[in-house]
Amino acid sequence: MTSYYNKTPRTTVRRRAGRGSYDRDTIDAILDEGLVGHAGIVGDGQPYVIPVLYARDGQRLYLHGSPLSRLLGTLAEEVRMCFTVTLLDGLVLARSAFHHSMNYRSAVVLGTCRAVRDRDEKLAALRAIVEHVVPGRSAEARGPSDQELEATEVVALAIEEASAKLRSGPPVDAGADYTLPVWAGELPLSLAVGAPVADERCTVPVPGYVHSYGRGRA
Amino acid sequence: MTSYYNKTPRTTVRRRAGRGSYDRDTIDAILDEGLVGHAGIVGDGQPYVIPVLYARDGQRLYLHGSPLSRLLGTLAEEVRMCFTVTLLDGLVLARSAFHHSMNYRSAVVLGTCRAVRDRDEKLAALRAIVEHVVPGRSAEARGPSDQELEATEVVALAIEEASAKLRSGPPVDAGADYTLPVWAGELPLSLAVGAPVADERCTVPVPGYVHSYGRGRA
Repeated sequence: MTSYYNKTPRTTVRRRAGRGSYDRDTIDAILDEGLVGHAGIVGDGQPYVIPVLYARDGQRLYLHGSPLSRLLGTLAEEVRMCFTVTLLDGLVLARSAFHHSMNYRSAVVLGTCRAVRDRDEKLAALRAIVEHVVPGRSAEARGPSDQELEATEVVALAIEEASAKLRSGPPVDAGADYTLPVWAGELPLSLAVGAPVADERCTVPVPGYVHSYGRGRA
Repeated sequence: MTSYYNKTPRTTVRRRAGRGSYDRDTIDAILDEGLVGHAGIVGDGQPYVIPVLYARDGQRLYLHGSPLSRLLGTLAEEVRMCFTVTLLDGLVLARSAFHHSMNYRSAVVLGTCRAVRDRDEKLAALRAIVEHVVPGRSAEARGPSDQELEATEVVALAIEEASAKLRSGPPVDAGADYTLPVWAGELPLSLAVGAPVADERCTVPVPGYVHSYGRGRA
C-alpha cells in the first residue's frame, strides 16, 4: 500500500519535529482508536471546531454530520476541513515547570469534505460509524428507515494530507534539575469503560461485544 | 456575576437545541474539567485544529502556545479562534442505529486571541496552566528561568461568545422499537488515572496531589 499521506509543507510538524510522524499505519491507528474527533471548518472567516463521531474507510473519513449542520446545512460545494483526533496517554511531571508535558498521540487530517447524498454510500457510512464506535453493534441494531436516513447527515472527508504527533516516556529534565527534591514521573491516563447500564425497559442480556468493550492499543 | 456568554446567532445551538446551554457556570465547569482542548485557527482559508493544554482565568483562557506555533509564529495581530473542550461520559446504545448517541459535555468558545508577551502575565498564565493540569504542582516544580520563559509561547483567548452542549441519560428509542430483542442502555466512559510511574532517577516519594489525582465532576 503506498502512502497517501505526504509530508507537505502544511502538514510538516515544525514544533518538536522529532515527535512528528507521516507513516500511514501510525496515523491510521490513531484514527481507528479515537472515538470522537474535532472537525474544523471556516464560516465567514471564523473557525468553528465541533466534536463528531466518525469512521475511517481507507483514505476517507465519514463524519456524523448532524453536529456540523450549522456549517453544512447550506453546503453544496466542497469545503476545506481539518479533522483532529487526540488520544491522551498520560501527564508528564518534570522537576521544572518548563519540562512538563503530556504523553499523547494525535492525528491531524487536512482535506476536502462533502455531504454524502447517495443512498448506498450513506447507509454504508452510517454502518461504518456505528461499527467504529461499537464493533459488533451494526449487526444487531435496527438499520435506518428511509425517513431516518433522510434525517441523518453524513459528511465524507477525503484525506489529502495528514500527520501524527506522538510523545511517550518519562520526563526529560535539565541536567542540574535532577538533584531537586521534586517528584517526577508519569501519571498514566486512559479511557475507562464502566459497567453497562441497561435501560429500564430492556430485558435482553448484555451482549458479548458490550460486556467486553474496550478501547486502546491492540 | 453577570453572564458574559451571550446567546448570539453564532453560538446558538441549532441541532438538538434542547441540549444547548448558555449558562456561565455550566460552560466554566466543562472548561475547568477538561485537560486538553482543540484550538481552531484559519490560515490562508484552511482551518487547522490543534490539541493544546490550557487554563481558564475568569473570562479568559490561556493556551500553551507551542503547538500553535505554526500559526502564531508570525502573528502580531489578534486573530479569531474557536476553542472546544469535549468530555465523554458514555456511549448510548439504542435499539435502532438511528437513535445511537453519546453522553457528553462540550463547550465551544469563540473569541480573539493574542500572543502573551508581558512577563508577569506570561508567568501567571504558565502557572495557571500547570495548576489546571495538576493542582498543587506549581508550588513544587521549579519555575521558569528567563531563557525558558522566552522559549515558551502562551496565547490568551478572550471569551467573547460561548455555548455548551450536553447529553446524559439512557437511549430514547422509537416506540415500536422497544419490543425488539436488542440490548439497549449506556456504556459509561471516563478518564482513568493509572498508578504514578516515577522516573528512573527519582528518589522522592509520590506527593499527595499526585497520589490522589483525579478528574471528573466534583
